[in-house]
Order: sequence, then structure tokens, then C-alpha cells
Amino acid sequence: MASSEGNKLWGGRFVGNTDPIMEKFNASIAYDQRMWEADIKGSKAYVKALQKAGLVTQNEMEQILTGLDKVFDEWSKGEFKIKPGDEDIHTANERRLKEFIGDPAGKLHTGRSRNDQVATDMRLWLRDTINTLKELALQLIKYSLCSHDLTNGPANQMESLDSQVHFSRILGAIAGNPFDIDRELLRQAEFLFWASMCLTHLSKMAEDLILYSTKEFSFITLTDAYSTGSSLMPQKKNADSLELIRSKAGRVFGRCAGFLMTLKGLPSTYNKDLQEDKEAMFDTYDTVHAVLQVATGVISTLMVNQPAMERALSPDMLATDLAYLLVRKGMPFREAHSCAGKAVYIAESKNIHLSQITVEDLQTVSPLFDKDVSSVWDYNRSVEQYSAPGGTARSSVTAQIEHFRTWLQAQKQKP
Amino acid sequence: MASSEGNKLWGGRFVGNTDPIMEKFNASIAYDQRMWEADIKGSKAYVKALQKAGLVTQNEMEQILTGLDKVFDEWSKGEFKIKPGDEDIHTANERRLKEFIGDPAGKLHTGRSRNDQVATDMRLWLRDTINTLKELALQLIKYSLCSHDLTNGPANQMESLDSQVHFSRILGAIAGNPFDIDRELLRQAEFLFWASMCLTHLSKMAEDLILYSTKEFSFITLTDAYSTGSSLMPQKKNADSLELIRSKAGRVFGRCAGFLMTLKGLPSTYNKDLQEDKEAMFDTYDTVHAVLQVATGVISTLMVNQPAMERALSPDMLATDLAYLLVRKGMPFREAHSCAGKAVYIAESKNIHLSQITVEDLQTVSPLFDKDVSSVWDYNRSVEQYSAPGGTARSSVTAQIEHFRTWLQAQKQKP
Amino acid sequence: MASSEGNKLWGGRFVGNTDPIMEKFNASIAYDQRMWEADIKGSKAYVKALQKAGLVTQNEMEQILTGLDKVFDEWSKGEFKIKPGDEDIHTANERRLKEFIGDPAGKLHTGRSRNDQVATDMRLWLRDTINTLKELALQLIKYSLCSHDLTNGPANQMESLDSQVHFSRILGAIAGNPFDIDRELLRQAEFLFWASMCLTHLSKMAEDLILYSTKEFSFITLTDAYSTGSSLMPQKKNADSLELIRSKAGRVFGRCAGFLMTLKGLPSTYNKDLQEDKEAMFDTYDTVHAVLQVATGVISTLMVNQPAMERALSPDMLATDLAYLLVRKGMPFREAHSCAGKAVYIAESKNIHLSQITVEDLQTVSPLFDKDVSSVWDYNRSVEQYSAPGGTARSSVTAQIEHFRTWLQAQKQKP
Amino acid sequence: MASSEGNKLWGGRFVGNTDPIMEKFNASIAYDQRMWEADIKGSKAYVKALQKAGLVTQNEMEQILTGLDKVFDEWSKGEFKIKPGDEDIHTANERRLKEFIGDPAGKLHTGRSRNDQVATDMRLWLRDTINTLKELALQLIKYSLCSHDLTNGPANQMESLDSQVHFSRILGAIAGNPFDIDRELLRQAEFLFWASMCLTHLSKMAEDLILYSTKEFSFITLTDAYSTGSSLMPQKKNADSLELIRSKAGRVFGRCAGFLMTLKGLPSTYNKDLQEDKEAMFDTYDTVHAVLQVATGVISTLMVNQPAMERALSPDMLATDLAYLLVRKGMPFREAHSCAGKAVYIAESKNIHLSQITVEDLQTVSPLFDKDVSSVWDYNRSVEQYSAPGGTARSSVTAQIEHFRTWLQAQKQKP
Repeated sequence: MASSEGNKLWGGRFVGNTDPIMEKFNASIAYDQRMWEADIKGSKAYVKALQKAGLVTQNEMEQILTGLDKVFDEWSKGEFKIKPGDEDIHTANERRLKEFIGDPAGKLHTGRSRNDQVATDMRLWLRDTINTLKELALQLIKYSLCSHDLTNGPANQMESLDSQVHFSRILGAIAGNPFDIDRELLRQAEFLFWASMCLTHLSKMAEDLILYSTKEFSFITLTDAYSTGSSLMPQKKNADSLELIRSKAGRVFGRCAGFLMTLKGLPSTYNKDLQEDKEAMFDTYDTVHAVLQVATGVISTLMVNQPAMERALSPDMLATDLAYLLVRKGMPFREAHSCAGKAVYIAESKNIHLSQITVEDLQTVSPLFDKDVSSVWDYNRSVEQYSAPGGTARSSVTAQIEHFRTWLQAQKQKP
Repeated sequence: MASSEGNKLWGGRFVGNTDPIMEKFNASIAYDQRMWEADIKGSKAYVKALQKAGLVTQNEMEQILTGLDKVFDEWSKGEFKIKPGDEDIHTANERRLKEFIGDPAGKLHTGRSRNDQVATDMRLWLRDTINTLKELALQLIKYSLCSHDLTNGPANQMESLDSQVHFSRILGAIAGNPFDIDRELLRQAEFLFWASMCLTHLSKMAEDLILYSTKEFSFITLTDAYSTGSSLMPQKKNADSLELIRSKAGRVFGRCAGFLMTLKGLPSTYNKDLQEDKEAMFDTYDTVHAVLQVATGVISTLMVNQPAMERALSPDMLATDLAYLLVRKGMPFREAHSCAGKAVYIAESKNIHLSQITVEDLQTVSPLFDKDVSSVWDYNRSVEQYSAPGGTARSSVTAQIEHFRTWLQAQKQKP
Repeated sequence: MASSEGNKLWGGRFVGNTDPIMEKFNASIAYDQRMWEADIKGSKAYVKALQKAGLVTQNEMEQILTGLDKVFDEWSKGEFKIKPGDEDIHTANERRLKEFIGDPAGKLHTGRSRNDQVATDMRLWLRDTINTLKELALQLIKYSLCSHDLTNGPANQMESLDSQVHFSRILGAIAGNPFDIDRELLRQAEFLFWASMCLTHLSKMAEDLILYSTKEFSFITLTDAYSTGSSLMPQKKNADSLELIRSKAGRVFGRCAGFLMTLKGLPSTYNKDLQEDKEAMFDTYDTVHAVLQVATGVISTLMVNQPAMERALSPDMLATDLAYLLVRKGMPFREAHSCAGKAVYIAESKNIHLSQITVEDLQTVSPLFDKDVSSVWDYNRSVEQYSAPGGTARSSVTAQIEHFRTWLQAQKQKP
Repeated sequence: MASSEGNKLWGGRFVGNTDPIMEKFNASIAYDQRMWEADIKGSKAYVKALQKAGLVTQNEMEQILTGLDKVFDEWSKGEFKIKPGDEDIHTANERRLKEFIGDPAGKLHTGRSRNDQVATDMRLWLRDTINTLKELALQLIKYSLCSHDLTNGPANQMESLDSQVHFSRILGAIAGNPFDIDRELLRQAEFLFWASMCLTHLSKMAEDLILYSTKEFSFITLTDAYSTGSSLMPQKKNADSLELIRSKAGRVFGRCAGFLMTLKGLPSTYNKDLQEDKEAMFDTYDTVHAVLQVATGVISTLMVNQPAMERALSPDMLATDLAYLLVRKGMPFREAHSCAGKAVYIAESKNIHLSQITVEDLQTVSPLFDKDVSSVWDYNRSVEQYSAPGGTARSSVTAQIEHFRTWLQAQKQKP
């Protein structure tokens, strides 16, 4: 074990051996090796700073840079061999550097604690991470917009209004944060929380789509590529992709909760407690990465069943329009709302559609009702009357989509 | 129950009575009445918009505004009476408005769902809330800086370095967010998370101070105003204020966790699930409000025990300086670190201070050691050598404090 | 403030005054007064123990018991006045006792720390609490069973199988714990976790019922007493009661998460951090209490729409039966499952029901298909074939209900 | 990809290919392969049940059992090869079985859904898991008791009382649950919560020991095997083992929180959401497993520094004894507590030890003080006076340890 002790950055004064279980408990190389590139980049920047400060010579710096490039090559080619004693990626890279260039390797970490090094590596890793997730989020948004184009009957505009508003909220949450607040995202807890919020939004979206894909709703159909079957019931097609998306908010928020619980009440002299953070970060990244890809796949391939949506329309949905008819005749909204409510009650009692109540019956509710009530029972007109920004009119919906397209284009051109 | 039903905003078509337990379960007036001011402000803005859109007349608008002012007066004077059927603050204010001005009150909510109204009220309430917490955070920072001025021996600069770095992180977390990212804070989940992070930082600070106030450390003493006694042990003085501060991170993060769990998987057609959010917001605000005040009180009155801090210094702490002595003589840092580690081990074996090892013994570790090693054993010199920004030198610490002072001044002048 | 200091159990050696904000921060009387009865009961038991140990005389004990009875009376009649300085229920009761009987009151807490007293009070309070929740849980179970009796067509037995299995799980979770593991429940964290699990189950049940009450499913209708209307849309009837039930799992689990986060990493010399626990306990109790009552109300009044459930049946659901037909003819299940899957695919391609495929077409999938396939298309027979315990046959379902009834009866007779 | 589709248990009716990202998202083989043994055991039991029910012949059963034994052998020898399409351990084992015995393999899962199979496997796995953790917990308890034997001076008995009480609570939490409530532990959420509670207790213990190992306390010293050094400061010895133990409560509770959040609000028709649970279970098991081992190592090797503990004693700690002196002379406890408090204040004002106050000064506080006060200042006597069960007297502590030993012995003999 002596040789492995010899590699440890802090091994000088210790004479006892580490318990092998403790060694494994302590080691992070199994998961932090994925930061190999960030670690090498960070060391290259650091040695340049040391040279400027006169702490290594020009020659030493060059040796170190060349050595680091060799280490980089080995990782790139999948040839880097982790050895016993390489407890983390930093130790591993420094050990290999020393094998390449000998003594000058020992100068690389002058005045640099491992905590500093870890923080720098994590910062560099997060920066790349955010860029990748940004790309994926934009792709999801792009396909979401396309699928809206498919939804072009007035009926389904009405039905899908809620989910459009909802989409725009999701997309805002996904897309807004990583670009605007880079600085904050670098703070890990905030990354974990952002990820939790993002997956919570996607969990809502998944729940909507699961509901819409039930036999009873039948508003949408997932392609086979995103469904799985039941091992017992041959006819069953499960929306597994959506169920998995729905579940991941819990996983990621659990990571966030665990991280904060670990942080809580630590005195400022802590050290190892925060080793935890890296696994949480990597797992969170991998999860968000997969969810965004699968969500894009699901959205871009699902089929919208317009006739089913149209069948789901019923005159009741126009009760607010019935109230507005009275408002236009001078009745306060609250009173009009109450009158429309009574009309709904009459229809339910008679087991007929709201549009089938006679004018006479309506007049028992309010004398303001007249033959012109028939103009209310037109879904298309109902949708088209809200033409303000954010409204349900075809022109408004088109404008919103256009707005997203422009914003999307702008995001893609950002560096 | 008929009369109470009559007040409800949605009562038109219902004929059954509500179960009284359900009524209580559903009601939020017990806690949301604290938004009374935000609700009235929001309604005043809304009726002006209605008038502009031609949906109420100039006269009706004036009646409504006058009526709302009367409602405002009643709340201000503590004379507003909540009645059965006032299930939330919005219903209560509208009911009272109607009692004042009659029918036109019914026009106030034309085209406005209760969800919209709640969202607006919450937004207005949060804006005020953030301003209040900002004031308190600045006060805590101000007193924290003062207490640093009291800590002026070189010894304790060394000891307190960590905690200064730590302080600056706390203050950054406390002070940075609410001002820079107003927009985001309006998003409730983010407010809850910010509060969790803020209290997690204060929980760390509390843990530090609790440790420093133990008999064994005795670095600081809390004033009686922030201590309590033991009901069993007369000599005991408990740092209850700090223990309470330490505990609150859990409470607030629990609110955040609960809120996200409630959000998770909700379809977009939800409605009542999110009633929860208000209590979480109010409780979080009250908790952060109290913690900031008590923390300011504790910090501004604690006594620093400089002799105890000086007694805590020991030559071991200068082992890094011993290593740097070798680095200055050309040895790579890793090797120098290892040599200093061996010196520490010799001192421990002989049960003497590191500074008491003879030059001869040191030379068994490295021939580079010489008489000049004696220059290392000077705490003051050790601290003063790090004079770069962020360093431990008196000048650096002063500069950091000055930097905060300036930043603080700037914050206060912000609108 | 002197007088208020005088009341505090630990006031002897303190000369400074407490900061009023700190005093409020520290005080728990606002919420812990609900333990008044437990506190008095606990003190009565304690003074009897003191007398047995010879630490108070028979006479002193009697004075204290009489005094405690007077305090009890005041609370019962709502006449107890909380005074400044009554920081918690224990201080308040002791202060009042002293006013009644003078000096002997000072002997009540010989050798008893406030932590012990709080723990005893909490234990007594929890015991009553569990009994109350047990009653409510049994009531919910009783009504749930009744509503199953209403569901007596074979079709809906098939549809509701899943939800029966599910019900039994809920009921197990609700009913199993509080009775079997009294001892553990006394442990607060476990109470909070039990409550979280219980509400998580009820949250699932609520989600099911919300889904079943959508217009698209229409399997059930809530009575008006458990619905509310929309302030904007007159026709809308919201399942608010169920949405609130669904939301409460988050609230309570947040309490549990907060409590554990507060506990985490506390050294054993903690004191005040755990003041938090009481609010968490009370709020959790109140929430579970209300949820169980509202759930009972909802379940016992909802109307099951049998025709809608029957309309939801379709021959596809019998695909497993189609596979079993082949199994009975000697084909391994996996192969039979695959054949049935192919039949489903043929039906989908031809846009016909599974039962409408011709025998010829079926024989392209497997030559084992014959005219006897027609026997498969009978929902009643399908359900009745699973007559083992836990099966879907009418006899099995009845047996399960009977089993619960018996268990229920046994629970009620437990002390 | 056709061949991989072919392996899937539900592949019959699907014609599209699965998105490869989705396939990876969906697959659990990477982590659930550790249940290989449980899966084979479960299948062997199931096929026997099928034979009894007449659903497979004696011969088929024997073929299947022989085949399963071959699969078992491959796993045991590390020779099992996972192939593309083996999406989970169940599919993998069934695929391999079919390769060994052909068609009869297809009969193994007659009437068994994959959900049932997963639940059975998890149940079997958990049973073994609990036994392993039980062994480790008992080992920790055993070493904890030994280390108490080392702590045999009266002084440190006093000091360590708190931590003994605390130990017994930890041990109760660790050891009590897994054996008494096997049935409940099988419920996964409860396992996760039990693990959270167990690690929360160990987190407290770690916090205590970290505090006791600071230079200022110096009550204990960790061996090098459980410490690590600092990469910057050669003299520093970090209690990394304890810091890691302290951190793990967060990790595991995060898993628990995530799991409950995933569960929350799922309708009863869910399927894939709960795939999550397995990773949470495995990670939790691995973490508790490692923590128990490392904790045992730390406890069984730490050195107790009795002189430092004795130095930490001071007469103040005897203030309660001073109060009891007055109680024995007839003064009510509250008053005596107050008098002792005043004595402490006098000592603090004069900057002397409590034991150094003159009798004259004490008499200004209460005339009951007399020369016999000197008998109070004896730590040994103070500790020995509490000889009731659970007390601090040497005999009581020994009895407690003996009680644990007996209990421990009983646990080991349980099957």
C-alpha cells in the first residue's frame, strides 16, 4: 500500500495505512474522472499564472504544458489507466504528469489547495454542460412549435389554448435561465434547483400528454418508438417515455434536497462533506440531458387526433360567452355569471345541451335573453373574439408562435 | 348557509350546500388576509384598465375606486370584519365593496379569473416583501462589518480569515440575489429556494458561532439578550438564538420541498392544489424576517475574546510557511509539502512544538533547512505575506471591508 | 421587563434583558398552548412520583394537584389568560400554579429539565392524536366499502379492479400503522413520515378520482358539497376537494423533510433547534385530520356512473383472454402473448374491434384459432374466471370486502 | 434492431423501432442486474407454483429449474453476458433460459406481469440486504461498547454521559428497526426512511466526534487510517471519515425525498415512474453499508484523551449540585436554582471558580449556605449520586452496558 500512499497529495506525515474500506469511501475517481478535460484545462491555465507570478520558469511551464497535453491525449484515446492510489481525477492527472515529466510536475500546484482545484474544474465542467443543455432545450422548443402548426382547426385551438400557455411557461423555464443567468448557474445548488424546476415543468407536460393519450381522451397518439407494451396484456401500449419523464423531477429534486441537507449546519471548516456534490451534479446533468432528448423525440413524433378533440367540444364551454352576451346588454359580470350558471343548471336538469334550451326557458333566468342568443353557439366565433396579444384568436396564436420563433433564432445566434 | 353561498364568486349553479369541513378546508382567509393591501391595489389598477377598454364607464370606475378606498380604510384601522362566506381575501374585499357601492361592484372582475387575481396580488406582495428583507439584510451586513473592525490583532486576523471569507459568501448570498434578480424572485418557487439558500448560509454562520462560543473555544461571548438559561443547570448559558437560527434552514427548505412536491406532476388544468403556496410564502417570509433581525442582534452585540484566539495559535499552523521556505530555495511544492509534513511528524513524536525542532533534526528531513528557519515562526509575518486581493494581510482585509462598505452604500441608494 | 424575566424557568443568573424580537423568536406559546391538557396531566403524574421518592411531602403533593386542577378548569372554560413572559405552555402553567398555591409550586419541577417535560407532553399529546386519527381512518374505510357495494355490474367490476387493489393498499397504509406500531409512532419523525405516506396514498386516490370525474371519463360525479365553481366559467365544476387532498402530501412531506434537515448534523448538546418539531407535528395532525374527513365526505357522497364505465369497455381489453385461449391449447404463454399482440395489430390496421376479426384472419396468426374464439368476447366470463383470493370474480371481490369488514370490526373493538 | 425487439417481453404488436435514446432511458439492466440472484430464486418458486396449479407439466418444470440453475452458475462465475435487448435483469435471465432450454422457457411467466416479478425480486433482495446491514450494525454496537470500557475515570463518565445516552439512542435506531419490523422494511419507502433516520443519527454522532477531535477540545484522536491530510497545509489532519459519515444523511434522505415526490399524485395506472425506486434502494443500501463499516472502524480505533477531558471539568458544572444542597435543606427547587444561578454570577463577576466563592458571599444569596458547601465540589461524588437506572453512577453505566451486551447477544442468536 506504500506506493499508493505515495501518490496522495497529502501523504507526507501519515504513517498508518488507510483502511481499504475508508479508502474506497473516500475515493471519488469512479465518478469524477468525467471531469478529466476540465481538470487539464484548469491546470494549464494555472501553470501559466504561476509563470507570470515568477513561481515557475518559462522552461518549467513549457514542460508542464507539454506533459499535460500528453495526459489529454491518453484520455481522448481512452488509453488513460487509473491506478491504485488515484483517489480522484486531480491526483490521477498529476500522477501521470509526473510519470511523463518528472520533478517539475511537483511545481504545478504551488499555493493551490485541492478545494480550489475542484472548484475550478467544476466551474469549467458546468460551463460546457450548460451549453449542451441549452442546445437540447432549443431543439425541444423548435419541435414543440412545429407540432403547434399541425394543430390548425379552430376547435382544437380552443382545446389547446391551455396547453399552449402551459408550453410557453415550460419553454420559458427551460430556456430562460441557463442563458440569462450564467453566473448564478455556476453556483451548484442553483443548478440543481434549476434542474428540479425544469423537470417539474416537464413533469407537468408529461402528465398532460399522458392524460391526452388515454383511450378516453384520445387527443394524441405516441409513436411506437416512445411506447412500450405490457408483458401481460398484449393490447396495451404504455406511454413509458412520458411516465419516465414524469418521474425524473422527483429524482433530481431529491438530489437538490440531499445537497442542501448536507450543506445545512456545516461549519466553515468543513472539507469532505461536499464531496457529495459532484455525483449529484453529474447525475442531474445526465438526467436532464436524457429527459430533454426523449421529450423532443416524443413531441416531434406524436400524432394529434383532431376529430377526437372536436368531439370533445360541447356547448357548455360557451357558458362564459352566454354571460358576456348579458354583459354587453348592460348587466354586471357577476350577475351575468350567475345567470349563465342558472342556464347551465336548467340544461343539466333537462339532460340537454346548453344550446338546446329554449329562449323562453332562458328568459325565466333573465329577460335580457332574446333570439340573438343563437349567435353564441359558434366555437369559431368564440375563439376568434379574443384577438388581443396572448388571446385565442388564430391571429394571436400565430403571433405567439412567431414571437417564439424569433426568440429562438436569437438564442441560437448567441455565442 | 344560503347567505354564505350567495357571497361566493362561483355560486350561481350550485344547489347543494358545501360540507362545513370542506368549507374550512377550502378557505384561505385565515392566512391570505395579510394580502389585503395588495388585493386592493391590484383591483384599483384593474378597474382603470377596464375603463380604458370601455368595459366600465368613467362613473362606474370612480364609484369602484371610492369604494375600494373605503375598504382600504377599514383594514388600515383594524375595523374590517370578516364574515362567514368570506372564503378568501378577494371574496371578502369584493363583498365589502358591494356593501359600500352596490351593483357596480359586480363589474370589477369582468374577464378576470380568480387565479389571475391571486397571481397579481402575490406579485405585489412579494415586491414589498423583497424590499423589507433587503433592508434587513443590509443591516446585518453593516453590523457584521463593524464587528470585523473590532477584531484587529494579527493573531485573530489569521484565525478569522476563514470566517471572513465565509462571511463574504453569506453576505453575497443574502444580498446579491434579491436586488439583481427581482424578476426571478417574483417566481415563488425561486423565492422559497433563495430563502432556503440564505438560511442555509446563516445556519453555517450560526454553527461557527456556536462552536466559537463553547467553553473549549471561548472565542466569542453572546450577550445575555441572545442567550437563555437552563431550567435544570443554573450555570448553563445556552446560545438559543444561534440554535434557532441554525434550525430555520430546515423549516424553510421543508416549505420549498413541499411546494415542489405539490407542483410535481400536476396537469395544466389544476386549480386548487396551489392554494398551498400562500402559506408557504408567508411563513418563509416571517421566518427569514425574524432570522435576519436576530442574527443582526447577535452579531452586533457579541464580544470577541482576542486573548483566547491568540492562545489558540500554535506553530503547527505555520507548516505551510515552512514548506514555502523550501520552495523559495528551489524545491518543488509537492516535495516541500512532504518535507514539512515530516517535520510535523518529528515534532509530534517528540511532543514539542514545530518551532522547537532543532535545525539538525530539520536537516535530516532536507539539507536545505538552515538557521533562517527561525524567520518562519512569526504569525504576523505569515499573515502579512498574503497581500494580494483577498489575502490575509491587514491591508487586504481592510480593502475587502472597504469594498463591502462601498457596495453597501450603493445598495442603499438603489430605489 | 423585569417581571417577565422573573417568570422564566432559567432566569436566575441573567442580568441583561432579552431583545424583544429574540423573545418572540424564542417563544412557542402561540402554538404549544394546545398541549395544555397534556402538560397538566404530565405534571400530575410527575408530582406523584416526587412524593413517592420523598422529594415532596404528601401535603405539598396535594396542594400541587389541587392547584393543577384549577389551572385545568381555567383552560377548559377558555378563561386561562396568557401573560407576557409565558414563553411556552410549561412556563404558563407553572406561573399560574404559583399564583394559585404559592411556594410549593416551585417544587414541582425538582430534577426535571424542560426538555424532559416537553418530551412527556408531546408523548401524551401524540397518544390522543393517534386515537383520533384512527377513528377517522376507520370511518373513511367504512364508507369506502359501502361505495364498493354500489358498484355491482360485472363491467365495472372489471374497470374498478385496479382501483380496488389500490384502495386496499391505501387502507392498509392508513389503517395498518397507527394501531400496530403505537410505540414507533410516538417517535415524531416517524409520525411525520407515516403522515407523508398516508397522504401520498390519498394523493394517488385523489388523482384517480379527479381523472374519473373529467368529462372525458365521466365514471364518477362529485356532489356539489365537494365541488366549487369557477369565478370565470359558469359551467365549470371543479373537484377542489380532491385537488386539495392531492396537494397535501407535499405540505406534510415538506414538514418531514424540514424536520430531518433540522435534525441532521446536530451535536448531542443541542437544545433549541428542536423547538421546530412542535409546529410540524401540530400542522401535520391538523392536515391529516382534515384530509381524512374530507376524503370520507367525498367518497361517501360521490355518484358512480355505471353506463359510462360500461361504455368504456372494449374488446381489446380481452386480448389477454385471447392469449389464454391459445395457452389452453398448449402454446407457451410468451408465444400466445405475441399471437394476441398480432391480432390486436390486425384489428387496428383494419380499424375494427378485436372481436370483429374473422377466424380466417386469426388463423394467419396461429392455426390454433378456431370458432371457439367467440367464447372469449364476454366481459362477464372474463371477470369471473379469476376466482382465486384477490381475483376479479364477484365472489372474490365480495370476500375481500368481507375481509375488510371483519378487520374493521376488530379494529373498533381494540382499546 | 429487430433481434433486440424480439427479446422484449412485450414486443408482439409493435412495428416501429424504439428510439435508441429512449431505449437507454428505459433500460434498467445497468443497475438492476445486481438482483440476478433474487430474480432466479423468484422464478424457481414461481415455476413450482405453476406446476402445482397444473399450468406447466412436471417435465416442463424440471427443464425450467435445470435451465435456471445454469443461468445461476453463469452469474456466479461472472460469465453471464448481457446482450443488446436485455433491457432489465428479468428479460436477460429469461432470454438466457430460452437459449438453454428452448420453448418451455416461454411458459415460465404465464399469468405473471413484470410488475409482479419486479416486486418479488425486490422483496427477496431486501430480505438479504437487511440481514447484512443487521450484521454490520451489531458490529458497530459491539465496538462502541468496548470503547466505553476504556472510558473509565469518573471525570470522563460525567463528560461522556450525554454521549452515552446519545449512543444508546443511535444504537436503538440502528439496531431496533431492521429486526423488529421486517414486515414494514419490505416496504421500500420505509426502508429509505429508516436509512435516513439511521444516517441522521450517525451524522449526529459524527458531529460530536468531529467536535471532540478539534484541537480546542482534544477529547479524542482518530487514527491515521481514518484521517486524511491537507494538500496545502502539511500539519493538518482532517477527520474526513467523520465528515463523510456526516454528509451521507443528506444523500440518503435526498433519495427518500425524491422517491416520495415521484410517488406523489401518480394515478393507480402508473407503470414506469417507479423504475426509479431500484436505483434509490441500491444506492441507499451501498451508502448505509459503507457508513456502518467506516463508523465501526473509526469507533474501534479512536483514542480517548482522558487528561483533556479531566481538564475540561470545572466547578460550574456542579451548580446543579449546589442547588440540590439547598433543596435538601427545604428550599423549593425553583428558588434553589435561582440561588445557584446568583452564585454563578458572583463567581463570574469576580473572575473566580464557583468553588472559590467564600461562604460569606454565598450567604448573601441564601442564609442556608454553610460550611458544608465544600462537600459539593467533588466531581466523583456528583456523578455517583445518580445511581438509578440510566444514571451517571459507575454502577448505572456498567449496568447499561451490560444490558446492551445481553441484548446484543440475543440479536446475534436470532435467525
